Amino acid sequence: MERPRPLSGYPEWLPDEQMVEQHLLDTLRAKFELHGFVPVETRAVEPLEQLLSKGETDKEIYVLRRLHAADDEEEPGLGLRFDLTVPFARYVLEHAGKLAFPLRRYQIQKVWRGERPQEGRYREFTQADIDVIGEGRLPFHYDAELPLVLHDALTPLPIPPLQIQVSNRKIAEGFYRAVGIPDVSGTLRAVDKLDKLGEAGVYQLLTGPVGCSEQQAQACLDLARITSPDDAFVDHVRALGVRDPLLDQGLDELVQVVETGRQLAPGSVIANLRIARGFDYYTGTVYESVLIGHEQLGSVCSGGRYDNLASTGDQRTYPGVGLSIGITRILGRLLGRNLLRASRQTPTCVLVALPTESERPRCNQLAAALRARGIPVEVAPEPVKYGKQIRHAQRRGIPYVWFPQGESGKDEVRDIRSGDQQPADPQHWLPPENDLRVTIVPGHDAG
Amino acid sequence: MERPRPLSGYPEWLPDEQMVEQHLLDTLRAKFELHGFVPVETRAVEPLEQLLSKGETDKEIYVLRRLHAADDEEEPGLGLRFDLTVPFARYVLEHAGKLAFPLRRYQIQKVWRGERPQEGRYREFTQADIDVIGEGRLPFHYDAELPLVLHDALTPLPIPPLQIQVSNRKIAEGFYRAVGIPDVSGTLRAVDKLDKLGEAGVYQLLTGPVGCSEQQAQACLDLARITSPDDAFVDHVRALGVRDPLLDQGLDELVQVVETGRQLAPGSVIANLRIARGFDYYTGTVYESVLIGHEQLGSVCSGGRYDNLASTGDQRTYPGVGLSIGITRILGRLLGRNLLRASRQTPTCVLVALPTESERPRCNQLAAALRARGIPVEVAPEPVKYGKQIRHAQRRGIPYVWFPQGESGKDEVRDIRSGDQQPADPQHWLPPENDLRVTIVPGHDAG
Repeated sequence: MERPRPLSGYPEWLPDEQMVEQHLLDTLRAKFELHGFVPVETRAVEPLEQLLSKGETDKEIYVLRRLHAADDEEEPGLGLRFDLTVPFARYVLEHAGKLAFPLRRYQIQKVWRGERPQEGRYREFTQADIDVIGEGRLPFHYDAELPLVLHDALTPLPIPPLQIQVSNRKIAEGFYRAVGIPDVSGTLRAVDKLDKLGEAGVYQLLTGPVGCSEQQAQACLDLARITSPDDAFVDHVRALGVRDPLLDQGLDELVQVVETGRQLAPGSVIANLRIARGFDYYTGTVYESVLIGHEQLGSVCSGGRYDNLASTGDQRTYPGVGLSIGITRILGRLLGRNLLRASRQTPTCVLVALPTESERPRCNQLAAALRARGIPVEVAPEPVKYGKQIRHAQRRGIPYVWFPQGESGKDEVRDIRSGDQQPADPQHWLPPENDLRVTIVPGHDAG
Repeated sequence: MERPRPLSGYPEWLPDEQMVEQHLLDTLRAKFELHGFVPVETRAVEPLEQLLSKGETDKEIYVLRRLHAADDEEEPGLGLRFDLTVPFARYVLEHAGKLAFPLRRYQIQKVWRGERPQEGRYREFTQADIDVIGEGRLPFHYDAELPLVLHDALTPLPIPPLQIQVSNRKIAEGFYRAVGIPDVSGTLRAVDKLDKLGEAGVYQLLTGPVGCSEQQAQACLDLARITSPDDAFVDHVRALGVRDPLLDQGLDELVQVVETGRQLAPGSVIANLRIARGFDYYTGTVYESVLIGHEQLGSVCSGGRYDNLASTGDQRTYPGVGLSIGITRILGRLLGRNLLRASRQTPTCVLVALPTESERPRCNQLAAALRARGIPVEVAPEPVKYGKQIRHAQRRGIPYVWFPQGESGKDEVRDIRSGDQQPADPQHWLPPENDLRVTIVPGHDAG
């Protein structure tokens, strides 16, 4: 085999980077469970027709076929999931009879999109989603709760703070309708491109293919410029002189989200009326989020309210609201710029030195005694000179080397950073808490 | 949308079952890290040519294409991984310059095979692998260590005990060569079918398509019948009257694995010379394992030594040895037969009752105070009658309901199983340890 080269768009971490991801995901899981979210995983594949019916994403889907499928064999028509919301909506419909509603669930899995790779955009990446789904109805207060769960989950991590930017599609749709815009969803999609195209580019789209008048396009841009850390946005919208009942409802809802956030986690949630979101399935609240200091990376956590995604015809609907954290996008940036790292390259805290190969069984028992007390241990690979065994530990950042002394003397343990060496007993010795487990620390470029 | 139906071969768990899997994987991870294994994840896809070069697995591979790939676009030729060993070998070659050897890694991910689904056989399933890979060489003692790591990792779990059955390809290959069998790998593949075809069926294969004489076929079956919990198998092989240097080496190696296991974890590791394994890449030790009492499920944990899987032509080889736990196969059986379950359906320990919607902010703060002390809490969805709120908790197995009393009185907390209700303070109250977190318990059929 030639030395293989990376596949563009399919990031892989080195082991110490993987420990950083693991720590991040463990922290999120623990927090989600503190908030009463249950774990769900869905299969990687969904029927293609399902994936295609959920909005403007068809060009990005990977389709599967069995390599040796006979030519006349019916293709099952399966594609890899491109998000975790569409599969979860299907899961809820499929298992509804066995689920308790409202269902609070988290889901941490990979998704796949056949996009052109670039920084922050991958073909395979990990998302961590939280959603609440009701049966028939879902009280609005969950729209205000989710950003706070997210804030609580990310706060303990050594990553830049998140700013959650919220809007509500009812505001945009009510407003567009009131000013007489014929193509509401085309207008939304155009406004969603503000980051990419700027105001002039979106204005051209709106007055061109979308079919708005110049005055209508200007009104859309005026609306999209409004942002506030509290309910002040309501007055700014009112000042545009447009009234509509759907607009009013959207404003009321957004006030509730922003004011709840302001009271419980000041500074973390702001109203930003340019937020539109690409997926068609959102019906109310929409969220995006930026890592402060890394705004040009784009949204690292997005989502919204979807009242009609999961429904069985006219019979039952399962309205939901959710947020999805782009784990790989965040890690790709922070690891790539050395802003985050593991305190060492391996979980191992102690390397048991091996005097001779025949003493391996005794060293294994010593290691087992330390492990039984929660200390991560490995035994040296080979009975080479102690200097070489110590270098084996140094290369991995293993902080301690244990020297067994046989029947005659007492074992000794050396802190190989300080060189300090002390007698030690495997039934009693403990390293300082900071050395026991790998921790995640800001990298050397983070100051 | 119609109510969707399950896809055959793609199992999905309900949330309480997912918590069981999560607990199982968390336990394995913690144990693997105690033994100094680092986490690795690899991308879901590998170049098809890589997947096809690794043995008799081509018929099972899923190939990807982008749905809207242009007809003249060059197909990247990517397939989904069918195990975690082949991708890990590629990962080691790709990142060798940045890895420290011998590398101890664990990897817990899903794999895909286009097989005909049946009990214990899935199209998507989770494997938990441990491997040790060296650079240039890998001392043999790792072959003896891995079964002990596995034993240590599974012992704390409330699942049936595992019996690890070990053989060594050098025994079979040396033996076959010494009795003059021309097609050694064809013979190995035939012997691997003993469970499926029985002795008579394998005898027919050997004397038919494989091209053994009747005496040779009989000798193969004699060898495959040998099993022992200690080094007694050596005498049984010697009694067959066949001598060969490769056979001798295989016997020595297998003695080391079985005797190390007998000393450190008696009863967990036995020699069983019928173990052959399907994959071509194994070169020495081969492992299979059965859950005691569920032998007909087949092997739930398999692996072996592979000296040549990862190599860059003549320049460098990375010999390895690994074991792969079939998580989905184990869970499918134990969950399907109610032999394992979660102690409740949600992580939530306390439901905070909601007197009126306007008191939600105060209830949220109360919940936050409890969470800050590590207690999983959710606030009731709606301010309905307390009886209905209590039933909401009961349906999920949430053990406690918290009744806020406002400024005037002291809060009270009720254990809804006993009905016992006591005054409580969110800064001090703690549930019994058993109620704090979901635990995994043997199911009602397990006695």
